[in-house]
Amino acid sequence: MNEYDAVIVGAGVIGLSTAYHIKRQSPNLRILVVDKFNAAGQGSTAKSISAFRCLFSSPINYVLSDSSVDFYNYVQKELGVDLKLLFTGYLWLLSEGDYAELTPILKELASKNLKFKEYEAEELAKTLGLNISQKGDEEAELMGLNDVYKGICIPKAGIIDADCIVKFYEEEFLRLGGEIRYGVKVEEIIVEACKPLGITGEPFFWQKSRVSGVRTNVGVIKAKKTIVAAGAWIPQLLDALGIECFIKPKKRQVFAVEAKSPRLRQLLYTQGFNPAGCIPFTILPKPRVLIRPFPVEGVFWLMYADDFPRAFKLEDDPQPEKNFYEYGIYQVLVKYFPQFKDCRPYSAFAGLYEINTLDGHPVIFEEKDLIVVGGASGSGIMKADAIGRIAAALYNGEEYALLYGGRKFRVKDLSIKERHVEPEKLQI
Amino acid sequence: MNEYDAVIVGAGVIGLSTAYHIKRQSPNLRILVVDKFNAAGQGSTAKSISAFRCLFSSPINYVLSDSSVDFYNYVQKELGVDLKLLFTGYLWLLSEGDYAELTPILKELASKNLKFKEYEAEELAKTLGLNISQKGDEEAELMGLNDVYKGICIPKAGIIDADCIVKFYEEEFLRLGGEIRYGVKVEEIIVEACKPLGITGEPFFWQKSRVSGVRTNVGVIKAKKTIVAAGAWIPQLLDALGIECFIKPKKRQVFAVEAKSPRLRQLLYTQGFNPAGCIPFTILPKPRVLIRPFPVEGVFWLMYADDFPRAFKLEDDPQPEKNFYEYGIYQVLVKYFPQFKDCRPYSAFAGLYEINTLDGHPVIFEEKDLIVVGGASGSGIMKADAIGRIAAALYNGEEYALLYGGRKFRVKDLSIKERHVEPEKLQI
Repeated sequence: MNEYDAVIVGAGVIGLSTAYHIKRQSPNLRILVVDKFNAAGQGSTAKSISAFRCLFSSPINYVLSDSSVDFYNYVQKELGVDLKLLFTGYLWLLSEGDYAELTPILKELASKNLKFKEYEAEELAKTLGLNISQKGDEEAELMGLNDVYKGICIPKAGIIDADCIVKFYEEEFLRLGGEIRYGVKVEEIIVEACKPLGITGEPFFWQKSRVSGVRTNVGVIKAKKTIVAAGAWIPQLLDALGIECFIKPKKRQVFAVEAKSPRLRQLLYTQGFNPAGCIPFTILPKPRVLIRPFPVEGVFWLMYADDFPRAFKLEDDPQPEKNFYEYGIYQVLVKYFPQFKDCRPYSAFAGLYEINTLDGHPVIFEEKDLIVVGGASGSGIMKADAIGRIAAALYNGEEYALLYGGRKFRVKDLSIKERHVEPEKLQI
Repeated sequence: MNEYDAVIVGAGVIGLSTAYHIKRQSPNLRILVVDKFNAAGQGSTAKSISAFRCLFSSPINYVLSDSSVDFYNYVQKELGVDLKLLFTGYLWLLSEGDYAELTPILKELASKNLKFKEYEAEELAKTLGLNISQKGDEEAELMGLNDVYKGICIPKAGIIDADCIVKFYEEEFLRLGGEIRYGVKVEEIIVEACKPLGITGEPFFWQKSRVSGVRTNVGVIKAKKTIVAAGAWIPQLLDALGIECFIKPKKRQVFAVEAKSPRLRQLLYTQGFNPAGCIPFTILPKPRVLIRPFPVEGVFWLMYADDFPRAFKLEDDPQPEKNFYEYGIYQVLVKYFPQFKDCRPYSAFAGLYEINTLDGHPVIFEEKDLIVVGGASGSGIMKADAIGRIAAALYNGEEYALLYGGRKFRVKDLSIKERHVEPEKLQI
């Protein structure tokens, strides 16, 4: 019988974390991962900004990221696998309005012993060469830009290399005897009658039916459970079955700028915020342009997650838009950090968010032998380990997943039907 | 200035009800309805099974349908406009399991003075020529069909002509000075900066922006508010703006069978259930095949709303599938009503549900001068009047809509962000 115990669609960080945790717990199971690309993590995982934070108002967001980051840190420190994890911190630059809005949330978090540090704007102006006042600048006023009033820095946050995480999971999964087939594109999920009658056209609606595998460019693959971890491609596969997952694809763009000038190098390697000796991952006031330091490469990654009217659109090869940097990100950036004046990106890339439009939390549920794992909404890298453990627990029929560090997580909290999540108030 | 006060996309029953109620309340406003077809109600409205019931467990479902049906009844009786409304009743044929499940819900409804009548299976066997026992029938057992244990009949339920409702709204809207343009296909919804700067590429993400109208095959139409009531086409239009409406299209098929034989004529014109002297709209035990009487035409409409794995799929011209009747509906139907033996449909048609996958209730919300009215999930005809009044109230910025008969309805209860609905337990 050529039926796998599970076939996992997608060798991105979510699919491989899931595969690894299932195999780790049950080494005798036959688990197959398939991916349309020719290597691991070549889809949206490779296009991620690969940053993390462990400060959220939603307890679920917190535990998913905090336990995953603890695991990555353990892998790097204890297992000696370099994931290029660096605790650079997250620095929020807040307008007076932002600050008033966030203060009650921050106070609540402080009472739970979650650590962060507050900075005065003047201090940041000095250490970062930050332009904290937009007053009198006609352009900035036209653009609706606000003065920087305070800064909040989260220490347990930083950057990591998504590719290194993916490679770690892939190697461990293979070492345990897991199978991976690259270059295998899933064309559709197969549904069959639970008790086939051998009549053409089955399943009919009066028959009980289930997902029995996938049809791919290299043939049919049968499995007891089909696990879809295909990121932004999940809704396309599920729509064909009439199953709602509340995930929509949306393009995200990242622009890389070299720290060539002395002033930019000085900014990149700003001392005092973290042991790494670089600028933290920095979030400007609204509209929240993001600066992700890449100190080893001498580079900044720049990004903005545009919402309305950015389309929900599935693209096989999404492209960055020159004007998005030139008339968008650059215009905002240079008003706060004049060091970037005249800087143009030397490279850029675009990937797809898999946005959960219900609440932005991941979606992990089972229906008719189909398990769906997705909807990380831009925080897949920082939560992948926990998500993989929860998906593995669901696969194993367990009520609770054991996250790294021993924390228990109720599997159904991320389901659709018995979902229990709290809205995140500390959004970027 | 060629800007309309509102442009309404879709001249189906929802769009025209909305148009009529806005215009009725504010006759001086310039309201334009556009539709890609060459007449009113030619999309999914025309493909509806056009039945209604006023018994639901969810208070919202109840008030939407009950007030709409009261209005239709008023139009027919008091205004003398024939909507072909007939109170045939709804007859649920229940298995023992169904009955046990529904009893607590029915008791609760009885305590609210909602009327229904219970029938013993034997009585129904006699009056309808119904086969209530599937025992000993190998095929029926293989198909998982259950015996009929009881029947529940709702008197305030029946059939109506969707086309007549649509024509009523259209005529009233035009009489009040409303404008309709047919053959106008909306290609996209237009977004503009609130304060345009005259730079190519606007709106940039740092600008506030809003929906300012629609681009169509005959040019741009500008409006203060753009109201999208395009049924199953809503998500396609909204996805392009990255706005989630939780609506998905799904095909529904209706098969028409003539009551040719004496036994079928006898079934169609069964006496005793209603003043119309015909079989009620009848719902078989699971899988719930539906029988919609069409006494004036001497016809039955037969239908089944298949869920998994019927795709969420947008089709411009959805087609009924012969096998869906032959191996699906017919096989179930003939086990309960042997009168249908060897009956084949003389015609069939297919339309698209606009399913709200959140909770099956309508979705009515405003975002950036765009108003979305949809998601009626197969009960659009029976709720259209109330939905139009609520959409008009939203357009007018009112907190409450006044439904026909004087009932007040909180507009935000059907929004996305402040949604407040109860799940429907009395589903077909």
